[in-house]
This record gives sequence, C-alpha cells and structure tokens, in this order.
Amino acid sequence: MTRLAQARIETLAREALMRHGACEDQAGALAAGIAAAERDGLKSHGLMYLPTYCEHLTCGKVLGQAEPRLSRPAAAVVAVDAANGFAHAAIALGLPALIEAARSQGVAALSIRNSYNCGALGYHTERIARDGLVGLGFTNAPASIAPWGGRKAALGTNPWSLAVPDGQCGARFVIDQSASVVAKSEVMKRARAGEPIPPGWAFDATGETTTDAAEALKGTMAPAGGYKGVGSALLVEIFAACLTGANPGLVASPFSGTAGGPPGTGQFFLAVSPDATSAGAFAGNLETVAGAFAGEARLPGTRRFGAREQNGQGIEVAAETLTTLEKLAGTAA
Amino acid sequence: MTRLAQARIETLAREALMRHGACEDQAGALAAGIAAAERDGLKSHGLMYLPTYCEHLTCGKVLGQAEPRLSRPAAAVVAVDAANGFAHAAIALGLPALIEAARSQGVAALSIRNSYNCGALGYHTERIARDGLVGLGFTNAPASIAPWGGRKAALGTNPWSLAVPDGQCGARFVIDQSASVVAKSEVMKRARAGEPIPPGWAFDATGETTTDAAEALKGTMAPAGGYKGVGSALLVEIFAACLTGANPGLVASPFSGTAGGPPGTGQFFLAVSPDATSAGAFAGNLETVAGAFAGEARLPGTRRFGAREQNGQGIEVAAETLTTLEKLAGTAA
Repeated sequence: MTRLAQARIETLAREALMRHGACEDQAGALAAGIAAAERDGLKSHGLMYLPTYCEHLTCGKVLGQAEPRLSRPAAAVVAVDAANGFAHAAIALGLPALIEAARSQGVAALSIRNSYNCGALGYHTERIARDGLVGLGFTNAPASIAPWGGRKAALGTNPWSLAVPDGQCGARFVIDQSASVVAKSEVMKRARAGEPIPPGWAFDATGETTTDAAEALKGTMAPAGGYKGVGSALLVEIFAACLTGANPGLVASPFSGTAGGPPGTGQFFLAVSPDATSAGAFAGNLETVAGAFAGEARLPGTRRFGAREQNGQGIEVAAETLTTLEKLAGTAA
Repeated sequence: MTRLAQARIETLAREALMRHGACEDQAGALAAGIAAAERDGLKSHGLMYLPTYCEHLTCGKVLGQAEPRLSRPAAAVVAVDAANGFAHAAIALGLPALIEAARSQGVAALSIRNSYNCGALGYHTERIARDGLVGLGFTNAPASIAPWGGRKAALGTNPWSLAVPDGQCGARFVIDQSASVVAKSEVMKRARAGEPIPPGWAFDATGETTTDAAEALKGTMAPAGGYKGVGSALLVEIFAACLTGANPGLVASPFSGTAGGPPGTGQFFLAVSPDATSAGAFAGNLETVAGAFAGEARLPGTRRFGAREQNGQGIEVAAETLTTLEKLAGTAA
C-alpha cells in the first residue's frame, strides 16, 4: 500500500488518458472523477477502471478527441451531445448552464446523448447539490435486466441518484442506487474466480434463479424488489435514453470489452431550486426527515463522506494499482 | 352486482361529497378521480374510500370549502397551496399551468403543499402524458417505513408514478409504485380478519420480521428491495414534502381515522417535453424500449388500461357499495 494525494492520482490518471489519445478536456474531466471516486472509497469507479478507459480510447469505444456540443433547445433545458467522448466531459460542460437555468427558471434539465459510462452517478448529482439545488440524475446502461417474469434482458441496471443540498455548499446526503440487487461486476468477479453467487442475485438464460455465476452471465440480473426494480430501471431508461435521444440499453454496445464501437448511452439530470418551490420550508423539513434517521440507520452516502474525511491526508492505493497507473501514465521508472 | 356508467358513479360521488360539506370544485375533482379509479379496476382508490372521504369532511381532516391558491414563483414552477382541501382539487388547478409551462420552458414543476391523500397517483401523471409530456409524480404519506435496519418509522410508503406519452393523446404506459413490498391496507385487512401475513411484508415494533398482522401494525412496513426501497421512499419525501414545504410523513396526521386534523402532506409533479430534450428521437426510442417487453411481460399499467376498455360499457359495483353510495349521496329510496 502507498498513500497518494488526491491531486497526484488526478494528475497521473490525466496523463494516462492523454497518453492513450484523450485531449486535455476529456482527460481532465474523467481524471477528476476517478480521483474523487478513490477519495470517496468507491474503488470500483476509481483507478480499477483506468486500464479499461485507456483500452477504450485505443479501440475507439470512446473518442478521445471528441468535443461535446452544448445547445439550449428551451429556456429550462440544456442539451449536450457528448459526441462519443467520455460522459464526464459532457456533464462538466453542461452543469454550469444547468445550474444557472435552474436558478433562473426554478427547475431545469440537462439532457446528454451519445455518451458513455459516467462512473459514480452521485459524483455528478453532488455537484448540483453543492450549488444549493436538489440534483436528480439518471444514466442508462446496456441491457441486463429482464421484464419481471421474462427471460430476455430489456433494461440496464440503470442507476438513479439524488443529492440534497445542506445549505452550506455541500450535500446533506447522496443516494446512488442501481435497479439490480447487486452490481453486475460482482457476478463477473465470482465467475472469474469460479465461485458461486448467493441466491436472488441473478437468473440463468431460462429465467430461473441460479447460484452459478457463469450461468448468470448468460442470463439476467435480478431487479431489487422484484417488479418494482424493473419499474425503477424503466423510469431511468425513459429519462436517460428516451428523453435524451441516446441509445436504449437494448441496442447500446457493452461497457466492457472492446467490441461494438461507442455505446452511445445517455444521462439526464434535473436541478430544482428549493427557494422556488418550497416557500422557505425546505431546510426545516429536510432536518425533520434527516433527523428521523438519527439513532436508526445511516443516511445514504454516509460511508462516502466518511471515506472522504479519512482520505484527506492521502488515499491508500495498492502497490499493484500504482504500478499499473504509472505504466499507463508513462512515468514508470 | 350492478353495472353503472362511469358518469353515474361520478355524479353520485360528487353529490355524496357535497352533501358532506364539499364545495362544487372540491367534490367535482375528487369524484372524477374516484370514478376513474373504478373504471380502471383500482377498487381500493374508488368508491371503497368514499365513506372515509365523507367522514373526513365531517371531522375536519379535510376542509370541504377550501380554495386552493396558485402562484408562479418562477418561470418553470407552479405552486399550489391546497389549503387543506382535497389533493385532487389542488392538482386539477395546477395541471394546466404546469403543462403550459413545460411546453414553453421544456421542463416544469408543480409543487403542492397543505394537501391530502391524492388517491391513485398515476391518475394525475397520466393527465400529463395525455398532453404529450412525460409526467413524473411524487406523493408522501404518514411515516410507516423505518430506515433499513432501524425500528422507528421515518418515511411513508411514498409512491412515485411515471406516465409516458404515446404521441396520440394517451399514455404508452404508466408506472405507479409505492416504496413498500405491499400496501399497508393489505396488512390492515388481514389484522381485521385475524389472518397472518406472509413473511417479508412487515416488521414488528422490535424490527423483526413478523407474520402477525396485528404486531405488524405496531411496527413498520418492509421496503421493497431492502435499503433500496428506503432510498425510493426518501427520494419521494424530498420531492413531495421538502421541496413543496408540505408536512413530512413523520409529523403528518394519519390518512385513516378521524384524529389529528388535516395531514398536510404534499405532491410534486414534473412535466418534461420530449420535443425540447430528445432532438426528435423520443418516439423511436420509446418503441425500442416498449418493444423489449413484447412476449416477455406486460408493460406497467396494462391491467389498468385493460379494465378501462372492459368497463366502457359499464362498471360492476357490488350491491352493498351501491347502497352505501346512494345513502351517502342522499338518493336512497
């Protein structure tokens, strides 16, 4: 284990991405997201993914020189065509306009198409909350969940995220949850290791519950809460794919591997101004709701904030991860 | 069983509500909702609830002469103070302004406070979809779900609803789902009958899973999908209570019984114009997504639409229900 400052991780990740064909804007936006994920203890969205990002730049699944284009089709709508670059660059371009529009109109939307895996969705919604607005985000993914009772994948594990402002340039809490019982990467990990999965995680190709990780990968992921999880995935698909004009999960190419070209998935963000909608009651009501969790359970995102505080003095990175990072960045001794 | 036309049910329900103190606007808006629920086969939101509505008018849980007040705090925000009348009247007042704002701004919000149980949430979001907009709705309820792993209720069963326009003045589908595994009324029904409930529906006061319906009513409702169901209830609470300035479920008086005065809960609706956000791709993408359900499972709301078609020639009403209805309406022989 080595301790690295967040800024150091960001710099090395940016260099790695630029060395594999990303322009400065594309690399900078993604590198900031990667370093923030490491800081927040979200290792699966951090450096662990960097080799894949570099590979996807090389094989053309993501276009490193893409220039996202912003348009304003309506007073309360910001649209960004990510041009098959990284989602992070497109979102970073759209957020300031979204926030300005929500402040002036009361509510506003940011619609992103021709995009890519956006990493931890809560990273982006939290930026909305830091500006004093409620941020709600949706992002879709290649299909891996079947309609309830069906066998063929129709929808991705499609997360949504809510970030709620604390009135002090931060987030009171952040929800970031997918529609499936567990992330597909958990099943892939066990399949590689030849280990079984617990019942209830996934179905095989015939639609039956399975504990065989390899069979699960030929089938579908189980939605959290049964048909209600499918409803949640469908909600996200309507916003992130249909309302954006991005590729639905059914036709999007995979986020893993090198085949199929750019996935072209989408993100949709809503920003709502509590000042415009709540007649001054927002902060008090929020404390009532948050207060009900005291002594009962942690508010969503508490672990993320805890890791962030702990990692202020430096982020522990495995020796192997650092070696890979330095190799990708071309700074290896 | 007797067959009644939807219009006849609406007239009788309106008369019943007016006879118990509701003004014409309050009674008319709710009666239309009740008749639509009967038409859609949603009996639990139909005439079954009318005696409670009348009782709540009498005991002051709802103010029958309330005049909801509309304001426009921002260009894309419509706010309605329901003034402790029925939610239906407040929503009916706000919807035209919401739809107009969404058409001109691309996205708009309707924020409702000092409100009441709004019946089937999908009834309201579908009205947004019929105008060619995507409608997303949230409504909160008195607390009955505990934070995951906790024992004390913090959030209501808080449903959300999505209605998606079909491009032909109707809805392609409607999702209307609560955050709990089942509706609390299902537990109440079994408690009255002295029957057990299946495992997984609810927890007792110590936070343990119970099959004793009476113990469950002293405890909390199980969230669908575990902590993800709590996340869903929390999302709804932020929109329907915090962003509206309505009463959080923790402090709202019960929807059942006569005690505690008006619950003062809230509703929040978002309307999004696909024309503004999707660069013309909405309808095609929607068909891709909906098409993935074909041969697999029914799209959400299919049962509702089926009942509607079947009931076009008249709605079957139990003899007992009709007797109650006529008695409440003062038209009994």
